[in-house]
Amino acid sequence: MIFTSSGAGYHSESKAKEYKHVCKRACQKAVDRLRAGGMALEAVTAALIELEDSPFTNAGTGSNLNLSGEIECDASIMDGKSLNYGAVGALSGIKNPVLVARRLLSETQKGKLSAGRIPPCFLVGKGAEQWAISHGIPACPTEKMTTKFSLSGYKRNKRKMELAEQVEMKRKRQSCEHENNSACLDTVGAVVVDREGNVAAAVSSGGLAMKHPGRVGQAAHYGCGCWAENARDISLYSTAVSTSGSGEHLIRTMLARECSTAMQAENTHQALLEAMQNKFISSPFLAGEDCVLGGVIVLRCCTCGEAQRSEDIQAVLVEFLWSHTTESMCVGYMSAQDSKARVSSSYI
Amino acid sequence: MIFTSSGAGYHSESKAKEYKHVCKRACQKAVDRLRAGGMALEAVTAALIELEDSPFTNAGTGSNLNLSGEIECDASIMDGKSLNYGAVGALSGIKNPVLVARRLLSETQKGKLSAGRIPPCFLVGKGAEQWAISHGIPACPTEKMTTKFSLSGYKRNKRKMELAEQVEMKRKRQSCEHENNSACLDTVGAVVVDREGNVAAAVSSGGLAMKHPGRVGQAAHYGCGCWAENARDISLYSTAVSTSGSGEHLIRTMLARECSTAMQAENTHQALLEAMQNKFISSPFLAGEDCVLGGVIVLRCCTCGEAQRSEDIQAVLVEFLWSHTTESMCVGYMSAQDSKARVSSSYI
Repeated sequence: MIFTSSGAGYHSESKAKEYKHVCKRACQKAVDRLRAGGMALEAVTAALIELEDSPFTNAGTGSNLNLSGEIECDASIMDGKSLNYGAVGALSGIKNPVLVARRLLSETQKGKLSAGRIPPCFLVGKGAEQWAISHGIPACPTEKMTTKFSLSGYKRNKRKMELAEQVEMKRKRQSCEHENNSACLDTVGAVVVDREGNVAAAVSSGGLAMKHPGRVGQAAHYGCGCWAENARDISLYSTAVSTSGSGEHLIRTMLARECSTAMQAENTHQALLEAMQNKFISSPFLAGEDCVLGGVIVLRCCTCGEAQRSEDIQAVLVEFLWSHTTESMCVGYMSAQDSKARVSSSYI
Repeated sequence: MIFTSSGAGYHSESKAKEYKHVCKRACQKAVDRLRAGGMALEAVTAALIELEDSPFTNAGTGSNLNLSGEIECDASIMDGKSLNYGAVGALSGIKNPVLVARRLLSETQKGKLSAGRIPPCFLVGKGAEQWAISHGIPACPTEKMTTKFSLSGYKRNKRKMELAEQVEMKRKRQSCEHENNSACLDTVGAVVVDREGNVAAAVSSGGLAMKHPGRVGQAAHYGCGCWAENARDISLYSTAVSTSGSGEHLIRTMLARECSTAMQAENTHQALLEAMQNKFISSPFLAGEDCVLGGVIVLRCCTCGEAQRSEDIQAVLVEFLWSHTTESMCVGYMSAQDSKARVSSSYI
């Protein structure tokens, strides 16, 4: 079962349509992997690749350009079964950043490197790019990942910045510019549970438009961009979370992990609303911030029922929830029993 | 009041002596700032600069060299009053990485950038270096930050790696090589409380010796390298934490934040021991890891007493604690009333 999101904070009708299409395709890819016996981690990777490859999302191809007109991507992935984690930040020149995060995760599972060195779980910049290429992950020149949309967005934003700096609009600088901010937050994520009840989560982002080179957002930050944790002794439910929105706000509130923790409560709807209110919108970590933009997709499940023998397949009860303070968010979901994905645009 | 640490995991007597000296000087620098009316954030920065400048610590000058023979530093800082945070990862060419983290923190307090852009709290690599220089922070060529110790360590490690890879010592690769691992963990940190009861924490590290270029460790990771949180409605105590050790283990366990949370319990000694045991050594996030190396310094304080009027200065009760799974750790502490710092080498 897969739950994807793309585009927390967009505006045009045409973009909404594109987001729906790509969410649908991402769900289908993940379910294909699950049907073929793949585990949650493989399925969530397949979904993210589809989301990154879409020129309309702010992840992989079509990512926002930074101040220097370059693409620098963040991505991370977490496996609820092993609790392993991999992330890349400010990564250029790689078509699918999630593949590098995925590979870092799997390399940590192989034990220590030569001379007792601990394998890295988080790589950034040029070093991350070199590591990816040396591990056989396809490179891709920035030009190929740049789209006419990202380029025109860059030019528009550059003009806007120059204008703002010329006029020294101090008052306007401090205000919440929905139009600009919201439009650049359309990153992608997915959460998956497989037939064994394992959960996985992943997130990928091109980051804020016109960000400073080297800026790393929540998508590469442990506990902030995604979280996945199988049920164990102290926690009844398996949870998986992926976030989207203003990276700095999502980092400082560790929203993915906070939502995961909240999902151990009985009433999920209530718990998610409270988490968004208390741990994000009015979080003490964001005191003084005037516009707190973010969205989360959450999956919670528990294996219950009356399995008599260990080989009995137990029923897995799954709940999908989402919440956002951005104007809009596109979500899609699909189970292995469904013939096609359901997608919807959520507005507030 | 300042509490510093350097060198979680060292061996030689001569190094222990050097660590004690630098801890002493760092304490003195911080107390000088506090006596001059400086706040916790300024004092902790002053301590870290002293620790980074020592050629003996694995931070700033004298940092471990990475696989390519380069220095790439991680550092972060957190202000318990505003809960603001700044961090840099894989940063080359800057003498004092903590200054960049400090500046990122203060820039976020100035509100949005032109055209409504949110200021970054985490920068990495070349972009971080450019940002630092454009904000007037002194650059420094890698050669100047390399010491004869770091260079000889690099050559020794390189030989060891080549040998290990030639002989394909699969079994040895998996084992816990204390000698190598432990020797490269000697990073630095400090926690401070000022006369108003505000806390701050900072951490700085050259990272693991022979790490892959672009690898970012716990020192640049929110919630993992340092944490500072003033007391507020739901928490009675102000807490500040700084960690040192195997970066990947400290990331996956979010040890700084976990220790901070644990410090709200009545019995601090018990709470810290339990946190180290349950949230680190036998954490489910490190299942399968055979040697979990780390150290923490913790400060907890509460303002209590019988202030009659708001202008009365209340007594601030401060506790310092430390714990480590590495063989050794050097700690120092000093209050504004002390004539000199006390330092000690802690062994297990």
